[in-house]
Amino acid sequence: MFSEKNAKAGVTFPKGFKAAGVKAGIKKSGNLDLALIYTEKEAAVAGVFTKNAVAAAPVIVDKEHLKNGKAHAIVANAGCANACTGEVGLKNAHEMAKLAAAELGCDPYDVFVGSTGIIGVNLPMDKMAAGIKAAAAELSEDGSVNAGNAIITTDTYSKACSFSVQIGGKEVRFGAIAKGSGMIQPNMATMLCYISTDANIAAPLLQKTLSDIVEVSFNMISVDGDMSTNDTVLVLANGEAGNAEIKEGTEDYKVFYDSLKTICQELSKRIAADGEGATKFLTINVHGTKTFEDAKTVAMSIAKSPLVKTAFFGEDPNWGRVICAVGYAGVPMMPEKTVIKFGDITVYANGLGAEFDMDELSKVMAEHDIEINVEMGMGDATATVWSCDFSYEYVKINGEYHT
Amino acid sequence: MFSEKNAKAGVTFPKGFKAAGVKAGIKKSGNLDLALIYTEKEAAVAGVFTKNAVAAAPVIVDKEHLKNGKAHAIVANAGCANACTGEVGLKNAHEMAKLAAAELGCDPYDVFVGSTGIIGVNLPMDKMAAGIKAAAAELSEDGSVNAGNAIITTDTYSKACSFSVQIGGKEVRFGAIAKGSGMIQPNMATMLCYISTDANIAAPLLQKTLSDIVEVSFNMISVDGDMSTNDTVLVLANGEAGNAEIKEGTEDYKVFYDSLKTICQELSKRIAADGEGATKFLTINVHGTKTFEDAKTVAMSIAKSPLVKTAFFGEDPNWGRVICAVGYAGVPMMPEKTVIKFGDITVYANGLGAEFDMDELSKVMAEHDIEINVEMGMGDATATVWSCDFSYEYVKINGEYHT
Repeated sequence: MFSEKNAKAGVTFPKGFKAAGVKAGIKKSGNLDLALIYTEKEAAVAGVFTKNAVAAAPVIVDKEHLKNGKAHAIVANAGCANACTGEVGLKNAHEMAKLAAAELGCDPYDVFVGSTGIIGVNLPMDKMAAGIKAAAAELSEDGSVNAGNAIITTDTYSKACSFSVQIGGKEVRFGAIAKGSGMIQPNMATMLCYISTDANIAAPLLQKTLSDIVEVSFNMISVDGDMSTNDTVLVLANGEAGNAEIKEGTEDYKVFYDSLKTICQELSKRIAADGEGATKFLTINVHGTKTFEDAKTVAMSIAKSPLVKTAFFGEDPNWGRVICAVGYAGVPMMPEKTVIKFGDITVYANGLGAEFDMDELSKVMAEHDIEINVEMGMGDATATVWSCDFSYEYVKINGEYHT
Repeated sequence: MFSEKNAKAGVTFPKGFKAAGVKAGIKKSGNLDLALIYTEKEAAVAGVFTKNAVAAAPVIVDKEHLKNGKAHAIVANAGCANACTGEVGLKNAHEMAKLAAAELGCDPYDVFVGSTGIIGVNLPMDKMAAGIKAAAAELSEDGSVNAGNAIITTDTYSKACSFSVQIGGKEVRFGAIAKGSGMIQPNMATMLCYISTDANIAAPLLQKTLSDIVEVSFNMISVDGDMSTNDTVLVLANGEAGNAEIKEGTEDYKVFYDSLKTICQELSKRIAADGEGATKFLTINVHGTKTFEDAKTVAMSIAKSPLVKTAFFGEDPNWGRVICAVGYAGVPMMPEKTVIKFGDITVYANGLGAEFDMDELSKVMAEHDIEINVEMGMGDATATVWSCDFSYEYVKINGEYHT
């Protein structure tokens, strides 16, 4: 289903999208640091942004540009987050959009901007101008890999995916590039995710769909519990697939919804798995609560516990820390009704540690991908959270850097 | 004010209290692991316990014994938490009280029990019986140090304090032993705190006072954000000071309240400073919110952020991570009204990073005790949270142990 093997994968897989990634000289490393994504045909756009009260300048600008629901381009840089930069930062974010619009011949209002990197530092606008010009000249259907690499920071790899489905008798394509909760230079964990599709769907329905899906994808990952000032998810749908407009409540909509959910969940998993210093990818399934919110709260309580995270780093099947995190989640629970499994192996039931085969359990703990399954026995709701362990490397990445 | 220099300090400092700590063979290390505290004269008692829905057996027993408001003794062990042990655990916790009561010649209902250590394992009752017998034989006014050492786990030292004040023309004494959020063998962070006083005060007022004070002391510390199944604070007041009974609303009550608060806050600070692997003691003061709860929420958001905690471990004055944690706390805030200081040095104001002398700031960051001061500019409420950094050692202690 997912393909990343060729240069046309990722955000340029859907028809009518081009991309580029260039070295603008913003990252100290000299690596690719400026990405441009472009669709000549006007796209419907939807966006979801950080809930952090300290929103970075590009988030403020994007929220404004989202109002008319249309877009032609996204320009994003790494190396500087343009956060906590006041009036100057806001002016620079607007200028980013204007510079790209001038190169592309579109309205600045139809350009979205993103920044990730060190905070409290202003964008070097001379370098940005030259970089945007270079990126516009390099736009191509093979540009997704470079664009993806231009937005990563401490990510160990760029996250991209692409696939197609049939909607209304037409092949509708989806593509995406994303960066994860890697520390930025390393001031802050920032998630940027740019999704393209050639589906024909109106902006209001696209927005509703994205907002729903974010709740069961990007909002279900926890690397270190911190929420960035710059987190941004954007979806551009340019209609090039030629399908009849997707309307709510139809079979077409169901396929579209499931496709977008699949992309968002796949990227969420990769972001969690690539958390800083991560050696384990943890899938935490909570079943049997009264509400989704309860299940999510329990799963997040487990995902955010440093005691649980360090235990999995140490491959220690420490169910005591897990039941403890369930207990303090603040959700109705009864110890004697709760069952905890690591993979398929029951480690806690009936209020007591379970009898288990230690050799079998050790094999589960030695895997890279581990499932923590919790059955609460209080209702029918479920939730899944994706997370990772806490390692020495996490402390090293985040403690040894000096601003 | 505080004295720990002599053997009579700690929990045996108030008149009429004896204590002992013995080696019962529960800790694998063979160190002291069973503590007994005794007052021949009946004491009024108050207690506050973990809010974790998975409460350990000793917590369940103590809550029951608290109902009549009187106590003669506390018996506590380290090495085994008697948590997630079901009916057997509950029976064993009751048996602990009965064994001590038999040795001391009091009602089992007047004995409180505490356990800390590995979870999911039953207490070795033969060893407990022998240990309790030995401890009862060793009870003395010099026994506080041994008792304190018998309840610690991965704490690097036993927390104890004692002091006296004048109430109603009498010298009223206070003493305490406590153990902190060190990992237990290392299954779980558990806080146990036993406070003695010879003040004359009735149980209901003592309970109200303790419940109030816990909110501004033990509930204001964060080592790793995890809440144990065994957390317990008990205060025994035996009236041996001979003061007239302390009544609410009097000057005597004010002195008593302030004294108990001082003890609880002092122990809270020491527990935070001795968090596992801690190299820094962080005092997080938040001012200028509309409510105490808001201020506490912001302070806890900072205290629990792994990004903030690793930055302070690295002595990195990373104000970006602090303002980020303020921003996602979910409390009304305006970036341009918020001021952040490390010690006395302003690092963030007016929505921007402040100009500061890097050499001066480096000196602040190099200290063991560091204040993070946040002014929100939204109201008059304040809160202080005590915390510590996240180090390699934390990951080592919690990741390398195998259950």
